[in-house]
Amino acid sequence: MEAVFKYLAREQTRFVRELEEYLRFPSVSAQQAHRRDMHACSHWLAQHCRQLGLASEVVATPGHPVVIARTWRGRRPAKPHFLVYGHYDVQPPDPLELWDSPPFAPRRVGKYLYARGSSDNKGQHFAHLKAIEACRKTGTELPCDLTFVIEGEEEVGSANLAGFLEAHRASLRCRAVVISDTGIPDLAHPALTYALRGIAALEVEVRGPSRDLHSGIYGGSVENPALALCAMLAALRDRRGRVAIPGFYDDVVPLTPHERRELRKIPHDDRRYARFLGVPALSGEAGFTATERRTARPTLEINGLTSGYQGEGSKTIVPAWARAKLTLRLVPNQKPQRVARLVTTQLRRLCPSTVRLRVTAGHGAEPYVVSPTGPLAQAALRALHAGFQASPILLREGGSIPIVSDFRRILGVDSLLLGLALPDANAHSPNESFHLDAFAAGMRTSARLWAELAPVASAR
Amino acid sequence: MEAVFKYLAREQTRFVRELEEYLRFPSVSAQQAHRRDMHACSHWLAQHCRQLGLASEVVATPGHPVVIARTWRGRRPAKPHFLVYGHYDVQPPDPLELWDSPPFAPRRVGKYLYARGSSDNKGQHFAHLKAIEACRKTGTELPCDLTFVIEGEEEVGSANLAGFLEAHRASLRCRAVVISDTGIPDLAHPALTYALRGIAALEVEVRGPSRDLHSGIYGGSVENPALALCAMLAALRDRRGRVAIPGFYDDVVPLTPHERRELRKIPHDDRRYARFLGVPALSGEAGFTATERRTARPTLEINGLTSGYQGEGSKTIVPAWARAKLTLRLVPNQKPQRVARLVTTQLRRLCPSTVRLRVTAGHGAEPYVVSPTGPLAQAALRALHAGFQASPILLREGGSIPIVSDFRRILGVDSLLLGLALPDANAHSPNESFHLDAFAAGMRTSARLWAELAPVASAR
Repeated sequence: MEAVFKYLAREQTRFVRELEEYLRFPSVSAQQAHRRDMHACSHWLAQHCRQLGLASEVVATPGHPVVIARTWRGRRPAKPHFLVYGHYDVQPPDPLELWDSPPFAPRRVGKYLYARGSSDNKGQHFAHLKAIEACRKTGTELPCDLTFVIEGEEEVGSANLAGFLEAHRASLRCRAVVISDTGIPDLAHPALTYALRGIAALEVEVRGPSRDLHSGIYGGSVENPALALCAMLAALRDRRGRVAIPGFYDDVVPLTPHERRELRKIPHDDRRYARFLGVPALSGEAGFTATERRTARPTLEINGLTSGYQGEGSKTIVPAWARAKLTLRLVPNQKPQRVARLVTTQLRRLCPSTVRLRVTAGHGAEPYVVSPTGPLAQAALRALHAGFQASPILLREGGSIPIVSDFRRILGVDSLLLGLALPDANAHSPNESFHLDAFAAGMRTSARLWAELAPVASAR
Repeated sequence: MEAVFKYLAREQTRFVRELEEYLRFPSVSAQQAHRRDMHACSHWLAQHCRQLGLASEVVATPGHPVVIARTWRGRRPAKPHFLVYGHYDVQPPDPLELWDSPPFAPRRVGKYLYARGSSDNKGQHFAHLKAIEACRKTGTELPCDLTFVIEGEEEVGSANLAGFLEAHRASLRCRAVVISDTGIPDLAHPALTYALRGIAALEVEVRGPSRDLHSGIYGGSVENPALALCAMLAALRDRRGRVAIPGFYDDVVPLTPHERRELRKIPHDDRRYARFLGVPALSGEAGFTATERRTARPTLEINGLTSGYQGEGSKTIVPAWARAKLTLRLVPNQKPQRVARLVTTQLRRLCPSTVRLRVTAGHGAEPYVVSPTGPLAQAALRALHAGFQASPILLREGGSIPIVSDFRRILGVDSLLLGLALPDANAHSPNESFHLDAFAAGMRTSARLWAELAPVASAR
């Protein structure tokens, strides 16, 4: 490992130059105009992998192709097999006028490398590729077989990834997936993201009179649908900030004291955070910290409200209907379908007989968790420690990463989320950046990771 | 009176022809294109009044002119003076394609006369003019002096009426104003509308984070402004359907047993009414009938709700803000300003410290009531009885008629609301109509009214 780390340190300048070459491709998956750039970028990546000695190919899909790269020709059954996931497509760079330099002309300022895709996600999966190069060039045998799956549609919903996984299920059979596409609080706090929240979306419509009514002539004799909706939605939360739906918390796995201790290590200051968000004060479920509330506790949010007259001035009506868009963030082991049913049942119970109710369930995503005390997670934490020279922390993320569910559903394996993006990485925003120390630490972590994972993983 | 009634019956056919002539003017005050029609209509009306022997003139205002017509040259101090209010402007006739015949080409079908403005309001004040004609032509001396004030801006808010009243305050000094611009349930139920509700309008805004936040990353740690708004608005009503704002009912004059008995005479069927409005069932404040709730009890209505994402599908955000438009219908002796203050205070009390609240008071109108047992009201009821040959009922109307407050404020007098429009008159809608029996009954009522009013009114 000593030799590998030395090689990484020695070659870092060249790695950055190569990454800059990769970043020059405007591989914007969302825009038809960049179709050729997507093609060129995928082929550049496959070629680069071949130069590292990997068996690489560009695999067509109904959308943008997937680049696949293997450290193996024929699988060695004694060695465990892992996938490394990444994506070579990037977010559109707009609004261009807010960039300090052109998004596809990489620019170094001190320790920061600025370019669209630098953190999200080219730089992060490039670190894994360079770790492989270091192993090869130093004659360090990999204790496992690896397959890189670098897709080109992450920023547009990964619509063809599941089909790709289904089609190549046999050769992708593995022990786990490693993904570097999340964040860390700072360089002194490398992190394993071991849980994600799921989601259940619903639309609620309350219908009253068949048309908007004059509130003078009719007001008082019929229910106001907007007021009925407000009362129903307000009743979905109790005074302690909990979701007031019978059965909602039944499947919630409580946070262990260990997890809560770990979450408390994440740098956080309530007042600074409130100022950052622009709120007078933080809020939420009693008995939990802000970090726990937004990452490890389920929530109910109104995403939108619509009823009656919304223009200037006033219109004296009893509106015919009122609508709300709701999402519930879920934690292990809540199921989106069951939660949508519980919400619907409770809304029906709350709805007065003087109006009509329609609830429509929308998209759903399962929550996700990898046991942070399991052997794979512990191995990853050791690798992070070695790579960053700092004690890693355990993160939960409040959002959902749908591909993680695809990997679990289709390949039956967990994902290890080892992010390298700092809070100021500006992913999806102008002036996206990648910190070169995170790049270096990521390469070291990756080189160490396979040595840590291989012994604890049974071959598969 | 016998001679007058006979004259009215004999001349009815000619009266309808004259009314048709009046209805041919497309006197749409809202549309600049009809400016000449407004001018022509006002001059036709003034000329017609002159033919009846009235001293008539067209008085310019900053907007459309007012037609004034007097039964007197010099006021006779011994005789009481009354105003008759009406308006010669009409609603725009759109949508034209829904009319069965052109809106300004009057058409008779059985007892109905179809034309824009037939009920609202040309036909109704024309009945009063024709009653004067009948008195004059039969040599029946009027026991009072009358001044007709027929304005041209009622359908656009009567913006210049108050100024006109102020400017002519001395000559308009009177005992009461008679207005036929309201409705009756049917020809067997002539009615005196003796009370109107007032109104107080407010806009409520709850602001949370400085921008829409990702509900996955941040949701749970900040208050959702839409949910906070729903909870606040829901708390403004209690389980019995009452407005839950301290002090709100303090100034409400309770309905007397006599009033409640009278209101129960209005033909009404809960199930038929619910079907008409398209609701599964009626709703409202416990302990009151539907008629009482919509005419004689105060209410709180949400007129509009706006927050977050309102398009198709879902957007997983904690919205930055949520807004509601509210109106409260008021009954005597509630004051709009005081009610707006009470609502604001209660909203501030209900608002959590984790969001920011802004309440903006909008327009207000005072509720209105004339004692239904007072001598003027009793005189009007006797006239209605004679005119319709049916027992009149006492109505309260749920809406507001702002001009009534102008008369009270500027001239210090009550208005007697003696409506002639049937429920199928389609005021403000296509195929507006006026029932010719209501026209006839209205003329008889008017002829009788002055004889009934004069003795109970002190000269002024």
